[in-house]
Amino acid sequence: MTIVTTTDPRSGTTIDTTLVESDHGEVDRTVRASCQAAAALAAMTRLERADLLERIAAVIDVAAPALVDAALTETGLPAPRLRGEVARSSGQFRLFAEVVRDGAHVEAAIDHAGESPAGPLPDVRRMLMPIGPIAVFGASNFPFAFSVLGGDTASALAAGCAVVTKAHPAHPLTSQLSIQVLREALDVHEDAVTGVFGMTAGADLVRHPDIAAVTLTGSLRAARAIQALIDEREEPIPFYGELGSLNPLVILPGAADERPAALADGLHASFTGSGGQLCTKPGLACIPTGTSGDLVVERLRELVDGAPAATMLTEGMRDAFSTGIDTLVAAGASVIARGDTGEGGGANAAPVLLTADAADVHGPIAEECFGPALTVVRYADPSELTAALHQLPAALTVTLHTGATDADTARALMPTLIARAGRVVLNGFPTGVRVSWAQQHGGPWPATNSLHTSVGATAIRRFLRPIAFQDVPDELLPAELRDSACDIPRRVDGVLVRADA
Amino acid sequence: MTIVTTTDPRSGTTIDTTLVESDHGEVDRTVRASCQAAAALAAMTRLERADLLERIAAVIDVAAPALVDAALTETGLPAPRLRGEVARSSGQFRLFAEVVRDGAHVEAAIDHAGESPAGPLPDVRRMLMPIGPIAVFGASNFPFAFSVLGGDTASALAAGCAVVTKAHPAHPLTSQLSIQVLREALDVHEDAVTGVFGMTAGADLVRHPDIAAVTLTGSLRAARAIQALIDEREEPIPFYGELGSLNPLVILPGAADERPAALADGLHASFTGSGGQLCTKPGLACIPTGTSGDLVVERLRELVDGAPAATMLTEGMRDAFSTGIDTLVAAGASVIARGDTGEGGGANAAPVLLTADAADVHGPIAEECFGPALTVVRYADPSELTAALHQLPAALTVTLHTGATDADTARALMPTLIARAGRVVLNGFPTGVRVSWAQQHGGPWPATNSLHTSVGATAIRRFLRPIAFQDVPDELLPAELRDSACDIPRRVDGVLVRADA
Repeated sequence: MTIVTTTDPRSGTTIDTTLVESDHGEVDRTVRASCQAAAALAAMTRLERADLLERIAAVIDVAAPALVDAALTETGLPAPRLRGEVARSSGQFRLFAEVVRDGAHVEAAIDHAGESPAGPLPDVRRMLMPIGPIAVFGASNFPFAFSVLGGDTASALAAGCAVVTKAHPAHPLTSQLSIQVLREALDVHEDAVTGVFGMTAGADLVRHPDIAAVTLTGSLRAARAIQALIDEREEPIPFYGELGSLNPLVILPGAADERPAALADGLHASFTGSGGQLCTKPGLACIPTGTSGDLVVERLRELVDGAPAATMLTEGMRDAFSTGIDTLVAAGASVIARGDTGEGGGANAAPVLLTADAADVHGPIAEECFGPALTVVRYADPSELTAALHQLPAALTVTLHTGATDADTARALMPTLIARAGRVVLNGFPTGVRVSWAQQHGGPWPATNSLHTSVGATAIRRFLRPIAFQDVPDELLPAELRDSACDIPRRVDGVLVRADA
Repeated sequence: MTIVTTTDPRSGTTIDTTLVESDHGEVDRTVRASCQAAAALAAMTRLERADLLERIAAVIDVAAPALVDAALTETGLPAPRLRGEVARSSGQFRLFAEVVRDGAHVEAAIDHAGESPAGPLPDVRRMLMPIGPIAVFGASNFPFAFSVLGGDTASALAAGCAVVTKAHPAHPLTSQLSIQVLREALDVHEDAVTGVFGMTAGADLVRHPDIAAVTLTGSLRAARAIQALIDEREEPIPFYGELGSLNPLVILPGAADERPAALADGLHASFTGSGGQLCTKPGLACIPTGTSGDLVVERLRELVDGAPAATMLTEGMRDAFSTGIDTLVAAGASVIARGDTGEGGGANAAPVLLTADAADVHGPIAEECFGPALTVVRYADPSELTAALHQLPAALTVTLHTGATDADTARALMPTLIARAGRVVLNGFPTGVRVSWAQQHGGPWPATNSLHTSVGATAIRRFLRPIAFQDVPDELLPAELRDSACDIPRRVDGVLVRADA
């Protein structure tokens, strides 16, 4: 029996918990309970499930102060950020309640029977249905919005799938409290959310034959380990990973001319916020050579030089950040400004500003360095940018800052920006993700390993699969596919028909 | 230089072709040409692409006689079947022209900028965009509808992706002619469809860094080989496999009472049609014990006993079928009727009817035997069926035959049928797939390895990925996301809005 421990990264103090790592038997019992709950969830009507999601949102809001307290101790993230994150989490449940009520996500389609030159055509009806219990691996850097209470859990429950969470070792108490909050809200369906603790339990979970898919917000290393476990399974299952991302940001000459100080301030806030520990943190900025670009870089340098240390999520991440900077320097980057390293026994890290030659930006220099670091690359002519962006790894986001004189350059760059990222941001910063119907949080490898998103309304598609019904009479069909009046949009004989009023 | 050969399965005669297996350099040149074409395709408007798909359909129809002639020699499939398959192929291109014109498949969504308690919200717009060149591995059993001219090619081109086909070794000349037909129709975009020949070339194709996804309609063995190659890639890519399927068929007691002869006739036609070489062939039938069930089995026996031999697609498949029957028998099944084995040097196989005890139907007895074989399992009480179906591997289809007295049993079985298959067929037969908006051709492993379909309008989703645009002005947005009047359905601020009239 291994007791789970946790650490306050601000002081380095280790705290014992009353939690125990889940052994093989415990994981198996948990998944079996999850299967029972999955059947009950799948049997609920869409509107019942929407109500359930809203009840969860309300319970999360009530529990917010306790949740923030737990995470303050375990993550060192500032209280305003944590409060915002809890609100984002309940907001995600509310968005998915809307999605489920709307019902377009089941992609209902009806082709009535007909005739063709080759003979009679059967009646065919199709919709998406839930796939079964989902294993959700929480992230270190979002104890709420990408952990137990996060978007993967919300979208899986919305799909009608039960969730077994694997608590992140950096915040087990926050995870445990989050599980309790969800189970309270789920009431008789409490086993629709369960949790396991410990690395071995995580592996057992991925191996369990009744798990239908795995989600991870985490590192490439963790993703490779999970994929290897899936490859050993008798029945392969989908794996949705939100992994590493450099998030390049390009400042065009006109933008640098118009607003050098504002650009530096915004970029600084974006790469140092939350200790630079955001998947959308801009890790590399392309800045023009010349006076205006010099002003941007000079102001960045001033902002970083002697700036206060950030508290990182764990000492391990602080050490990895430090190693990451060493790797960048070994690969040819130079440190041009550094903040305070802080004091005491906590997981402190100094913000770092680096610079590198455009020609060197590939391999190690182009890898994500998780933490408050930004590498500046200077370019002489915008015509160099297309090749430079193609040389970088693809990313969750790519950002372009333009001025009045940059219209032609921006237009020419768009196909490259689209090809290399999942979100194109204009004249803004990639951190601070709006959660809404049109949002998407994915991108070509290594940003994600699939063509799906983990944020926004369509995240639900990951946990649904299509079923077709051929010549099945109304009384045996799901409500969404019957001929009677219907409360969701459907495609009937090829024509999109809105929900009946 | 290895010359490609082909064989007439009716006579066993080997025919030399003028085709040469593609070497490493040839595969690389082909994929590079494909990338150029992919950029051109992606840059076309939706309506231009729809027109192109219709032009392809028209050219296929004109070439139909030559295509059928080529396939007659290489596949031994009967001419009416081949003519129907060419028509299905051009029909698939026409369906995707409709899909592209309709435009709902890009899932366009617009969330306008707004305010929230946490501050201003950016404008976010999302749509699906093409992922790049697709490697399409054609099937042996559908020289048109699941090969070069098939649904994977049609849906990939519809998505705006170029296609590199890997010709199936059982019909290289048909493949080559199909490639020529497509390239003629593509005109200046001819490199949007290319082809490579040979096993080594297939592996090179999967390894090529510019290939964005792989599709296969084929065996589990082929799927494992392709997955292993993908696992070795630096950047993993999606793999869509349509693999093995037992397609169980259940006759309930009422149905057997009402129409024993018609059931036997329909079942016989379904499992022997096209030599039983269809992915949706019913491989196992659950038939009630008692007089009515006896009548069904007796008639099946009469139909199979001494029936003419089927010409299989290749001698290798004939041998595999023979081995498959031996495996079933070794696992406990008994042959209760067998057709003629035929004469001459061709790939002939006798249809086979087997029976097995319900208790034995797992492991080898529950595996697909590709060819004209059906295993009959008798059951005493419908209450045994749920457990029996859960014991079988999941499948592309599951079929239920009901009579007037079976309503309660049918209702109780529905959740199991849905859980174990991608298509539920009532009172019909699973072969003969209608290609339409609502169709879907997938299912839990081993039917497919993904949550996507290879047939029907939504097959296009496999070759698209979401991109979000944040605060990007109209002039830099794709047409589908601009604020101006729009010819496709979109979700605007959470509300589904139909195309402007």
